[in-house]
Amino acid sequence: MSLSREHCLALDAHDELAALRSEFELPRGVIYLDGNSLGARPCAALERARELIGEEWGNGLIRSWNKAGWFTLPTRLGDKLAPLVGAGAGQVVVTDSTSVNLFKVLAAALHSQAERDDKRKVIVSERSNFPTDLYIAQGLAAWLDRGYRLRLVDSPAELAAAVDDSTAVLMLTHVNYRTGHMHDMEAMSALAHERGALAVWDLAHSAGAVPLALEASGADYAVGCTYKYLNGGPGAPAFLWVAPRHLAGFRQPLSGWWAHASPFVMQPEFSPAPDIRRALCGTQPIASLAMVECGLDIFLRTDMQRIRAKSLALTDLFIRLVEQRCAHHPLELVTPRDHGQRGSQVSFAHPHGYAVMQALIGRGVIGDYREPGIMRFGFTPLYTRFVDVWDAVDILADILDNRAYDTEAPRDAVT
Amino acid sequence: MSLSREHCLALDAHDELAALRSEFELPRGVIYLDGNSLGARPCAALERARELIGEEWGNGLIRSWNKAGWFTLPTRLGDKLAPLVGAGAGQVVVTDSTSVNLFKVLAAALHSQAERDDKRKVIVSERSNFPTDLYIAQGLAAWLDRGYRLRLVDSPAELAAAVDDSTAVLMLTHVNYRTGHMHDMEAMSALAHERGALAVWDLAHSAGAVPLALEASGADYAVGCTYKYLNGGPGAPAFLWVAPRHLAGFRQPLSGWWAHASPFVMQPEFSPAPDIRRALCGTQPIASLAMVECGLDIFLRTDMQRIRAKSLALTDLFIRLVEQRCAHHPLELVTPRDHGQRGSQVSFAHPHGYAVMQALIGRGVIGDYREPGIMRFGFTPLYTRFVDVWDAVDILADILDNRAYDTEAPRDAVT
Repeated sequence: MSLSREHCLALDAHDELAALRSEFELPRGVIYLDGNSLGARPCAALERARELIGEEWGNGLIRSWNKAGWFTLPTRLGDKLAPLVGAGAGQVVVTDSTSVNLFKVLAAALHSQAERDDKRKVIVSERSNFPTDLYIAQGLAAWLDRGYRLRLVDSPAELAAAVDDSTAVLMLTHVNYRTGHMHDMEAMSALAHERGALAVWDLAHSAGAVPLALEASGADYAVGCTYKYLNGGPGAPAFLWVAPRHLAGFRQPLSGWWAHASPFVMQPEFSPAPDIRRALCGTQPIASLAMVECGLDIFLRTDMQRIRAKSLALTDLFIRLVEQRCAHHPLELVTPRDHGQRGSQVSFAHPHGYAVMQALIGRGVIGDYREPGIMRFGFTPLYTRFVDVWDAVDILADILDNRAYDTEAPRDAVT
Repeated sequence: MSLSREHCLALDAHDELAALRSEFELPRGVIYLDGNSLGARPCAALERARELIGEEWGNGLIRSWNKAGWFTLPTRLGDKLAPLVGAGAGQVVVTDSTSVNLFKVLAAALHSQAERDDKRKVIVSERSNFPTDLYIAQGLAAWLDRGYRLRLVDSPAELAAAVDDSTAVLMLTHVNYRTGHMHDMEAMSALAHERGALAVWDLAHSAGAVPLALEASGADYAVGCTYKYLNGGPGAPAFLWVAPRHLAGFRQPLSGWWAHASPFVMQPEFSPAPDIRRALCGTQPIASLAMVECGLDIFLRTDMQRIRAKSLALTDLFIRLVEQRCAHHPLELVTPRDHGQRGSQVSFAHPHGYAVMQALIGRGVIGDYREPGIMRFGFTPLYTRFVDVWDAVDILADILDNRAYDTEAPRDAVT
């Protein structure tokens, strides 16, 4: 069967995930390829918000901390999220932001290393990591003021040489936010361990996008995002995972009252909870936190293997169509072709990437842009159709063929 | 006029804040005296949630970060909150939790002191401070591992002797969560400065409850809560204030990307924003954050002087009525009678405080309980009526007179 719009419609007709699209509210006239940045809204979220704001807050008031289960949301949602990342019950909390959670686990990892070998002072990462990860590591290193420093490599291939016996932590984002490149979590965690380092993973662009096996992979700590592929809502609280073998020794500096063994005894001395609650800090934003469950519930109706199969089919199709139909334009595929190294997004660089993306958005194809020159297209198998891929490339080809983009347009602050 | 229910109704009839009660959704049959823990729901919050979840997330999707102003909410809400705490524009952000924000400002204060005088290693506070404040200070001190330690006093009267030339920071909660005791912010900040220390204030039980003059008081840093008297919704993000004289030197370890001078340039090196955004960290929970505005908007229709006058009238009335009508019961007033030392709550200790509070809640009078034996009653002038005070005491007297409380009932985890 040759590539055609009809072929794409046929793929949708045989797609076993197709029915899940109706669980999402998507605006008419839009092809949404930015679920890697902010996931679409589950239909159930509106009713859940009405219930939470109207009933639980409005009528339940303070009683809802117990009766509506607000106080235990971080662990309850953590247990619901755990299977999606290959973790067990009691290993995950949903809380705070990815940045704050990374601070906690990085601090915990450095503490754990210092107890064993105080000469390991290097945090190895990639210069292309999402900046907040590097900023948090810089902030923590500067504050500890004990000689900790970052060693940043320019490509994944350099990591093997960069991790050595001075390395305390190998801190990687599993799927790169810009290129869509995916690391082999098991191999890189093993590399860290061989050299005596610990492996800290940021799963912001992996959770809900690719199958993960945190426990089996040998990873030590992980954090991730709920508002991208997991569809938890704008800025929804992030998650944090601690390998069971590290939990008893897990110590983190943001020791707020929700991390206390008995928060309502109101003791003046901190005593950490014996379980994963020790990774919490202060009171959580319940309206945002509760929305996370609406996204997670949709994942319960399928599994990550089916999602991955469709994700690869979507990204393969997109790459093939762009390369066929836009071959004479200066587009460069940034994302690996190798399935084993690809997340669920495809990035193309173009000399006028920003302007072309603005033109696409103007025509209803919503992707986004990251410096330098990179157009990102996220493919979310729960609600993206094969025909969406066809139509998006159709519009991209039309924009490029007709040079229908404005290289002089002013830029938004957030793109 | 003698104290009677009619007298209370007359006070309500002449109350210039009475009309604002209609801005809140309050359950029928409930006298809500727990707005010091979780403020009531502004009516506007339900429509705002519908707009945010339904339109801005559902239809606007990623575009709403710019078009709906999500990205600038922390500073925009900070500017709206600032007049309520006596701060100027550009001095406040609404973000993260109180615990996380306290970590930031305490770290900034210690850093600032260390640059001036590295021998100051003591954080002075009260043993009766809200535990998370002490836990955060303990966590920070332990992690800095440079000899920092807490010095906790057992009563406000001991503070003058406790602050000395070893003190780096005097860290106080302005209104005590349990007793309702209020510090003189100006005097205590001056005490800190006389001894070369900095003053860090937690305004969790003050913001929206009592007039504050952060800038004029000489305070150095402050944090506070939006979900109590400010009615921002369960666990809504907290606020953080930095005195203008400290802003240029403000450094905090949670240096996430929202604190960067140019977050979307995606540089690998952290460079702090020149303004109050340097106190931010990561991506914020927008659904919870946006609700904060609904509460703040109600405050714009009055001022803190009017709120304070009614607050004192409500708490005076409550104390007087309880002491008249429950005189023969073992109730002990924990809250200061002196207006200058009282926040907007009244606490009474009773040997069976927990059981009595459960009985009150069962009869629709919602206050809360804190160890040991303390029943807390919060008075929120925006929606509490004088007749509510009468009726609440009426029910309390009835419960005590008839011993209509169960001292054997099991306790909830959260009270």
